[in-house]
Amino acid sequence: MTLANRSLVTIDDLSNREIEALFSLADEMSESMSEQSNVCQGKILASLFFEPSTRTRLSFETAMHRLGGRVISAVDIGATSLAKGESIADMARVVGSYADIIVIRHPWEGAAKIVADYAGVPVINAGDGGHQHPTQTLCDLYTIKKERQTIKGLRIALWGDLKYGRTIHSLIFALARFGATVLFHPAPGLEVPNHVIEKLATEYGGELKRYQAPDQAVKGELFPLDAIYITPISPHQLAMIPDISIQVELKTGVDALYVTRPQKERFATAEEEQDLNKHYPVVDKKLLKQKEFKKTLVLHPLPRVDELAYELDADPRSMYFKQAARGVPIRMALIALLLGSKEVSLPKEADSFAQKIDYLPYTRDYGVRCPNPRCASVQETESKYIKPEFKIVRREPLTLRCIYCEHGFEPRYIASSDWHEGRLDTKKYHSADSHWIKKIKPENLIIFNSESEAEAHGFKPSSYAKKHHGGNDDKGKRGKKR
Amino acid sequence: MTLANRSLVTIDDLSNREIEALFSLADEMSESMSEQSNVCQGKILASLFFEPSTRTRLSFETAMHRLGGRVISAVDIGATSLAKGESIADMARVVGSYADIIVIRHPWEGAAKIVADYAGVPVINAGDGGHQHPTQTLCDLYTIKKERQTIKGLRIALWGDLKYGRTIHSLIFALARFGATVLFHPAPGLEVPNHVIEKLATEYGGELKRYQAPDQAVKGELFPLDAIYITPISPHQLAMIPDISIQVELKTGVDALYVTRPQKERFATAEEEQDLNKHYPVVDKKLLKQKEFKKTLVLHPLPRVDELAYELDADPRSMYFKQAARGVPIRMALIALLLGSKEVSLPKEADSFAQKIDYLPYTRDYGVRCPNPRCASVQETESKYIKPEFKIVRREPLTLRCIYCEHGFEPRYIASSDWHEGRLDTKKYHSADSHWIKKIKPENLIIFNSESEAEAHGFKPSSYAKKHHGGNDDKGKRGKKR
Amino acid sequence: MTLANRSLVTIDDLSNREIEALFSLADEMSESMSEQSNVCQGKILASLFFEPSTRTRLSFETAMHRLGGRVISAVDIGATSLAKGESIADMARVVGSYADIIVIRHPWEGAAKIVADYAGVPVINAGDGGHQHPTQTLCDLYTIKKERQTIKGLRIALWGDLKYGRTIHSLIFALARFGATVLFHPAPGLEVPNHVIEKLATEYGGELKRYQAPDQAVKGELFPLDAIYITPISPHQLAMIPDISIQVELKTGVDALYVTRPQKERFATAEEEQDLNKHYPVVDKKLLKQKEFKKTLVLHPLPRVDELAYELDADPRSMYFKQAARGVPIRMALIALLLGSKEVSLPKEADSFAQKIDYLPYTRDYGVRCPNPRCASVQETESKYIKPEFKIVRREPLTLRCIYCEHGFEPRYIASSDWHEGRLDTKKYHSADSHWIKKIKPENLIIFNSESEAEAHGFKPSSYAKKHHGGNDDKGKRGKKR
Repeated sequence: MTLANRSLVTIDDLSNREIEALFSLADEMSESMSEQSNVCQGKILASLFFEPSTRTRLSFETAMHRLGGRVISAVDIGATSLAKGESIADMARVVGSYADIIVIRHPWEGAAKIVADYAGVPVINAGDGGHQHPTQTLCDLYTIKKERQTIKGLRIALWGDLKYGRTIHSLIFALARFGATVLFHPAPGLEVPNHVIEKLATEYGGELKRYQAPDQAVKGELFPLDAIYITPISPHQLAMIPDISIQVELKTGVDALYVTRPQKERFATAEEEQDLNKHYPVVDKKLLKQKEFKKTLVLHPLPRVDELAYELDADPRSMYFKQAARGVPIRMALIALLLGSKEVSLPKEADSFAQKIDYLPYTRDYGVRCPNPRCASVQETESKYIKPEFKIVRREPLTLRCIYCEHGFEPRYIASSDWHEGRLDTKKYHSADSHWIKKIKPENLIIFNSESEAEAHGFKPSSYAKKHHGGNDDKGKRGKKR
Repeated sequence: MTLANRSLVTIDDLSNREIEALFSLADEMSESMSEQSNVCQGKILASLFFEPSTRTRLSFETAMHRLGGRVISAVDIGATSLAKGESIADMARVVGSYADIIVIRHPWEGAAKIVADYAGVPVINAGDGGHQHPTQTLCDLYTIKKERQTIKGLRIALWGDLKYGRTIHSLIFALARFGATVLFHPAPGLEVPNHVIEKLATEYGGELKRYQAPDQAVKGELFPLDAIYITPISPHQLAMIPDISIQVELKTGVDALYVTRPQKERFATAEEEQDLNKHYPVVDKKLLKQKEFKKTLVLHPLPRVDELAYELDADPRSMYFKQAARGVPIRMALIALLLGSKEVSLPKEADSFAQKIDYLPYTRDYGVRCPNPRCASVQETESKYIKPEFKIVRREPLTLRCIYCEHGFEPRYIASSDWHEGRLDTKKYHSADSHWIKKIKPENLIIFNSESEAEAHGFKPSSYAKKHHGGNDDKGKRGKKR
Repeated sequence: MTLANRSLVTIDDLSNREIEALFSLADEMSESMSEQSNVCQGKILASLFFEPSTRTRLSFETAMHRLGGRVISAVDIGATSLAKGESIADMARVVGSYADIIVIRHPWEGAAKIVADYAGVPVINAGDGGHQHPTQTLCDLYTIKKERQTIKGLRIALWGDLKYGRTIHSLIFALARFGATVLFHPAPGLEVPNHVIEKLATEYGGELKRYQAPDQAVKGELFPLDAIYITPISPHQLAMIPDISIQVELKTGVDALYVTRPQKERFATAEEEQDLNKHYPVVDKKLLKQKEFKKTLVLHPLPRVDELAYELDADPRSMYFKQAARGVPIRMALIALLLGSKEVSLPKEADSFAQKIDYLPYTRDYGVRCPNPRCASVQETESKYIKPEFKIVRREPLTLRCIYCEHGFEPRYIASSDWHEGRLDTKKYHSADSHWIKKIKPENLIIFNSESEAEAHGFKPSSYAKKHHGGNDDKGKRGKKR
């Protein structure tokens, strides 16, 4: 099978079987590294890094060189072309006419999707803001798989900054798809974002439970848990057993502990940072002495700061340097596949616990825009040519997911495109949480995020349009509150 | 024929026949891209970018990789060696001892010439301040030629920032040489500099007309014209027909519209920028609906900002992404030729409408210096070793052209080197616009730009030395006023 | 013989015979440059530059390309990973798992040693702060050797900034090892650091003399001398002859003049810089007209600023551009050797004038730390995992040399680890310059740099612990005062 001409923007762009096939190719390549030096001869990889990164970029470039290909590289581009006001799409089209494959890192969420849409060549997302970093996820999964032979049924704990760590978001969905149980241990204030939890709860077959007061709920246990996702193949289903049984079950051991550093560069305020320094959980010898961690693999995407003690470096459970080293064969396999330089046979079967749902799209070119200020689609240079697009992931409460940054949010107002035909006095808008959401046919649905937006298009408030007070009328609500 | 060991500093460094031959090689290379991978094997290209650039640099590096060569690259060097006070010449000599060919971008006008003078290997100018960007011009010409088979007799309109856009300056001379008619449509305040107009008027065979009040002159016509250069092969000569006929003629159609962004990074003041935002002309669907543009190719060197609407991207007249893509085979052909890795046979003939004039040089090592503050020759690090040198492009009024930045200017004072031999009381200087300019023999001419300069060398004012008042006594006049 | 898997951190990492063999290989490679293009095929060199540098980096990258290898490159990394708080060791381990060899430049002294300790692949120091720059030294020696056939017995003058110029420090030891006489001509205030002088005086076989008032001592002579190191093979030994004889001897001619620019980026204060501008010695035609310089090779590691006049560029004695060009074959030979891609036979003999001394190590993990604030071992990110380590280079006065930055210093306090066993009242610390230094057995020696440090470990002052007054109690003394 060929993966030629495809892109890897989110981890969902590869099926479980494709990932398994890619892992086999990576195994093969790392066993015969010196034989790979002609695989991509004559091909050029462009690495475009709009954010500083040394490790990830060098890993990709090493991979391409090991395959015999060439590399053109633009580092920290923020200060150059962006300053001239150029759009990502233009850059993508131009570089796509030079190179055979593009690796992109960008601070805006959804930027990699835009590059993939316009480049005309395969594109690999090397991190787009707080959105995804799918090749890191492949390295993570590959390391777990190599050490434990499978991912299915394992218990994986996520540790630290689960809010801003993009590697975390890609990984959670991947673990769920492969049938792992996921334990969330965030630093206080750095919990997994709601849109991630939401997707995990609805699109994978397992059970999700969030703890109200994590510290109390699991007092004296392992380590404070904020939430847990239990794979459907687990013998203990959440719905049937009380909290206490889960804790007992967990005591049988954690298979892997995935530690992340605080992503301070994304913190909103200096206060957030200060607060954090006090409460950031540290993984050290003492923690790993607990019997639940006896056989726990310790993973970390690196760089580390203080959350992972140096004293663990020589511990056989420490996987983080192996994990980094394995990035090279994984990226070699990926590049060779997307360039069509290698083909693979898919394994006959690979369970997937993702439930693909065909959400209705919302694609009107006026009205609601993504309220995530880091979304690529709403940036000044990009909004000139990008048509906002969403998936309607829920009707009640009405919830949209941006196809660029994948943030979910509840827009405020709705209207219908048919009720006022010829009769301007019926051109009304209603609160999204009124009964009108049931009445408007999907194909007629118009969505606004603010009164002013609706009124700019000639709509008037109906009696079901509750006033929103406060200064953020035009901003919409961010995230999903339950 | 070989171009080995030559440099490309300005577009004039290649003859029309050489350019035609280079285009043929580019055609050949782009048709058999995969067969070029050994052409420059074992060769190293150094790309030295003292100014940020992603597109141009990656285009050159791609070209070298496609030829099988290697690349060493230094990006945004401004902050490093320059800060240590190193001269361009030293850098050129050192890097010339590492690499086989050098590509240089630098903010100072004339910097590429210095590198070419000292490197000892072929040098390609990838943009030196507002001076030239000859490989961009090659891409531009190549695109026009490929789409229209010839450049001779075409009508090409230049649009936007004609003042700071270095790609524009290279292009104007190239178009004139190849026999095109050139229409100038600057944004207000961003007209073509006088030294460019001057050269165009005197060194090419066509007729040049500037409009006093462009808006009025062509009211209701096409788009406001500031100046027009009519190729000598045009059936309608300017001298013979009134303005109105030209406009009629133009209505037969514009062959290409060359759009440029405002080069804000070179603007002198914030006011200049503000003013501009109001008046910068936009090329969009509406404009291109006019019948004069029915078959007009739309070119742009990219990056664009707002002057070129995204709605045109799918229009078959839009050439800008093709233009960028064609930069790779053009640069491949150029690199291969300058390295001597390829030879070409020149076409039997290629008309050239340039009239090579052998201007007298002015090379005294004291007296006048180039008054262009962006000229490489007057920078602190360079003036230590560079001897100023000029061409005397006109006697009355006395006009010099710097051989580095090619800026033209009228120096203020003159003297003679023979009149005072042995008799100090005759060591006098005169105004350059006095009758003395006719009396002094060229080989004796001494030129000063200020009184203090003249007096520092022991000259005293004659009665023909008019006083210049005001604060800029030492600065000289910049540009040419007519 | 193979040098595979070794690193080059300081010039002492290569024996004289190995250096001679490397020079032979460089000769061979530069004579058949085009035949080297498969020597390192399939190998990857990582160039990690934590400080700006164009010349050195491009020289290494050119060398690797000429050998047919590939390069991954990270430039000016300071702003990226370091900002995230990552340690050098982590970076080394990760990049060591990508590349086959690492070239590192870093502002911290000793940083290259850390990289070499952790990378798992050969490491080349391309400059670590003011410590060393051994490949520059190899280029320097190679140039002298090529022009004079030998280094033994030559008289080499060092000119300019001998304090901050790291190339100087490596070079001094190398010249001494190869049997040259070294003349020190520092700009005022930029004398060779004491720890360098100290090492030179004790570990090489020659005689060292420092002048108290250099200007007076050699008034009217050559140029002001600050110190002189006379090789043991010189017929005139310092001890036996008065100053005046040396000066006479020197008049027979200087073989090479090694000029350096002021390393302003390392200056402590703006005052230091201002002062310097007045007194920095300039090498120009006039100086070189003196008969002592008739056959003197002029070397400079480049970039130059004003200390070396452009008028010398065409002088046949000027070696600096050749020196830069020779960096390529030297680095090719070095890379090929360390990668094991080439082997060499060592010359039967090569005199060495270094006297290897097996200093006792001091490796307790508490107590004294290196007082050099630029030492890598004391930086916040590194001190988390690095155990300080010193050589005891002298007992009286007690003098330590840090194994990372090689700075020497005299710590203040000592104690013994056996005298207080079981009896806390004997747990006392003493002044390092008291008689206790003779009484404590080496294996029991504990060293502190401050009272507070000693007291923090439960030690109390003995009557032989002199109080140190002033604000820098915790800083220790820096450098060696004699």
